[in-house]
Amino acid sequence: MTAYHELERRFARLAALGDAIGILGWDCQTMMPDGAAEARAAATATLAGLSHDLLTAPVVADLLDEAEAGTAGLEPWQRANLHEMRRDWSHATAVPADLVEASSRASSAAEMVWRTARAASDFAALKPALAEVLACQREIGQAKAAALGCSPYEALLDQYEPGARTAAIDPLFDDLADFLPGFLGRVLERQAMLPAPEPLAGPFPVEAQRALGERLMRRIGFDFNRGRLDVSLHPFCGGATNDVRLTTRYDEGDFTRALMGVLHETGHALYEQGRPAAWLAQPVGAARGMAVHESQSLIVEMQAARSRAFLDYLAPVVRAAFGGSGPAWEAGNLHRLYTRVEPGFIRVDADEVTYPAHVILRYRLEKAMIAGDLTLEDLPGAWAEGMRALLGIVPPDDRRGCLQDIHWPSGGWGYFPTYTLGAAIAAQLFDAASRAEPDLRPRLAQGDFAPLAGWLRTNIHGKGSLLSTSDLLREATGRPLDPALYRRHLERRYLERDAHA
Amino acid sequence: MTAYHELERRFARLAALGDAIGILGWDCQTMMPDGAAEARAAATATLAGLSHDLLTAPVVADLLDEAEAGTAGLEPWQRANLHEMRRDWSHATAVPADLVEASSRASSAAEMVWRTARAASDFAALKPALAEVLACQREIGQAKAAALGCSPYEALLDQYEPGARTAAIDPLFDDLADFLPGFLGRVLERQAMLPAPEPLAGPFPVEAQRALGERLMRRIGFDFNRGRLDVSLHPFCGGATNDVRLTTRYDEGDFTRALMGVLHETGHALYEQGRPAAWLAQPVGAARGMAVHESQSLIVEMQAARSRAFLDYLAPVVRAAFGGSGPAWEAGNLHRLYTRVEPGFIRVDADEVTYPAHVILRYRLEKAMIAGDLTLEDLPGAWAEGMRALLGIVPPDDRRGCLQDIHWPSGGWGYFPTYTLGAAIAAQLFDAASRAEPDLRPRLAQGDFAPLAGWLRTNIHGKGSLLSTSDLLREATGRPLDPALYRRHLERRYLERDAHA
Repeated sequence: MTAYHELERRFARLAALGDAIGILGWDCQTMMPDGAAEARAAATATLAGLSHDLLTAPVVADLLDEAEAGTAGLEPWQRANLHEMRRDWSHATAVPADLVEASSRASSAAEMVWRTARAASDFAALKPALAEVLACQREIGQAKAAALGCSPYEALLDQYEPGARTAAIDPLFDDLADFLPGFLGRVLERQAMLPAPEPLAGPFPVEAQRALGERLMRRIGFDFNRGRLDVSLHPFCGGATNDVRLTTRYDEGDFTRALMGVLHETGHALYEQGRPAAWLAQPVGAARGMAVHESQSLIVEMQAARSRAFLDYLAPVVRAAFGGSGPAWEAGNLHRLYTRVEPGFIRVDADEVTYPAHVILRYRLEKAMIAGDLTLEDLPGAWAEGMRALLGIVPPDDRRGCLQDIHWPSGGWGYFPTYTLGAAIAAQLFDAASRAEPDLRPRLAQGDFAPLAGWLRTNIHGKGSLLSTSDLLREATGRPLDPALYRRHLERRYLERDAHA
Repeated sequence: MTAYHELERRFARLAALGDAIGILGWDCQTMMPDGAAEARAAATATLAGLSHDLLTAPVVADLLDEAEAGTAGLEPWQRANLHEMRRDWSHATAVPADLVEASSRASSAAEMVWRTARAASDFAALKPALAEVLACQREIGQAKAAALGCSPYEALLDQYEPGARTAAIDPLFDDLADFLPGFLGRVLERQAMLPAPEPLAGPFPVEAQRALGERLMRRIGFDFNRGRLDVSLHPFCGGATNDVRLTTRYDEGDFTRALMGVLHETGHALYEQGRPAAWLAQPVGAARGMAVHESQSLIVEMQAARSRAFLDYLAPVVRAAFGGSGPAWEAGNLHRLYTRVEPGFIRVDADEVTYPAHVILRYRLEKAMIAGDLTLEDLPGAWAEGMRALLGIVPPDDRRGCLQDIHWPSGGWGYFPTYTLGAAIAAQLFDAASRAEPDLRPRLAQGDFAPLAGWLRTNIHGKGSLLSTSDLLREATGRPLDPALYRRHLERRYLERDAHA
């Protein structure tokens, strides 16, 4: 057996362990009784430890060296697979075991403190625990930076979005930060002249919401033979190979949020269900990264499902599902509900227009904290200042400011930018797909996602991690990431009377 | 760290892996979409392989030797824990890896063939695959026999019921085999003179059945903070530490079977939830064996829940749950339904009186096959002959004969006797508990399981694997396993007009 094939065997076991961890994680959020928390944490930690041991065993370094010396005999997919193996190995071996453990402990502790500190809007209470997390993240960033040849913050980014570099993100986010305040003003001005959206009157029984959600998931292309829809406090798309588990949370007083949430997670799910069948258990068969992943949820939610074309189809469907009647149930009102813009303090409640401002703020702040240019002491003030500059509002307390997200206490530094990178990629992919498939938009108006899903499967899902994010985007759209397309999407939807936007 | 403590650390990781496998197994039966089967099999096999590697690593043998040389410094629970570690290790290391793999492959293959062969009542179709399984089981038995110092069949038995030996089982089963035919005749004679049970008219909505099942589970003492009730095709009690997952299958035309099934599984669950808290992640904290485990389900189902005392409590409860009325809903009729005796071909449909005959038959046949005294060629004939001798009936085809159970094709040789050992242990434990707790029976008549559950927790559940099965039974009841107590239970319930039986 060649070194490459020995590596394939080992990485297949790693994928199997990853599948086990994925199902246990889903179970923890959806099914597990509270009393099992401690034993489950032990089980998950044990699997993570075994996985780390498998990946960092000394023999892996030798096998990688040997396989890389003989790439001439490998096919392109195998070569890309080997490249991803090396990438996984570099991330795993860059950080000493005691730092991994210290970081895991610091994050668990800070996450616990955060739950009460956020509720009490007490940043001072979180600060000591958060300082530990930040110190670990800086150390991890430095260790990985040395291994990857980039800055510490980029090394953290690279964990979620391989190859992402600030030299590419900074100008993109600066472009948007310049554009958004003026654009937002114009959007709000125009919105003020339109009728206000009428709320839809419930109640909306959970069972009817679930049935509608599953029906739309099927239309989008979700394969229930290889996945499920369940309920959890915080919606997510997780699970395992050929076993994609989506969740949502129902509110019987308002179906609109859960419904759009299901469509969003279905976008993620299509990516997972469309990964290359021959490579599912190998690194090259994994999704490319979190920015591309987010682009897949946002292309379904923001590009397709909130379009006027699709809402024309959806309006009578929801009317029938809930027995609604009257003008509030017309497509026009549904469109006004689903494209309502309103600056607010909370990222997860933000609309499509103001969301990037929340992300840009966090990106700039976490980059500065990792670089040592911003202290936790100064974080609340910097947050307020950034909100004022980007959205013109200042949070009245830290609960609605720098305490709102779990990412920093839980150690997810470097993750935030993927949301807005994903939104920009989604706009560019949708533009390319619409040009390549002329009936994509008209078919959406009939609730038919087949042209969009087919194009995505060929150009994105089925490619796994064969290409870098930038090459993937270039091959699919003919150009690098271009914020102009994202801006144009926003302008068409929020400023022009475009029947499709 | 001492050798013993190093072993504790390693076995805690093994327990964590076991928990992961337990939850994946539950998910596979209750939640998993069909398309995930292949990936899930890979995940489970990987965890099983890692678990085997952890247990059989060369260092473990050294640690065991070293720890056993220094038991003077250990507490009794630690000494028993070490004994169980050695036991697990002996079983795992006795069989060479290629035989483990061959056996696993043979069983998977035979199980597949069995599903169609049973449906077609075609024993000839199963025979070649079953012969492979039998050959592997004989080899495994021989390998383990050498390591454990017992016969090959006993070595297989020992996997499920540690310490079980044919010298103890043979006289017990012979005693029952002598007793049953005559007893059955008398039971049927008496039964013929009583009114026939009236069937209860449905439909019985699943939701009402589930609510009633959960209500009774709570009364018996099931802790929903550390467990769940769900639905699967084949009911079981599984899950993980502090996370006991029961399942049942509902039939809207008949609630009685699912309800009693839930009570049966709740008996298993009490055992799992009552294991010693300080030793949950160690071998000594595990349930003693499958015979004792079955005794816990049967003490709840057969000793307590089918007693007239409990059914007096249950009758108005089920009447209210399903809005029933009329004489069919009286306790007397419920008792006649739940103690109906009728010889039949199918073990899983058998009543309390005829069930042991099914088990004794299988025990005798599998023991002879492992010893080489009976060939597969002669199995159907031997089956028919055994059924005639024990129950006076002969199955008209192999579907209702030697093809009915999954145990042999799936490699579960040596498991069958634990069912009837469990029934006999249950009778003896219930007798001792009733004498130790005088209000046990009157409280059951009020639907109150606290005295029974409390006695079991102290005398059985909380002991884990501290004692051997025979010592556990002797400490709890003052004597070794005595079939007379089991016979007396059957006689009181089925021949006498005992208000409690």
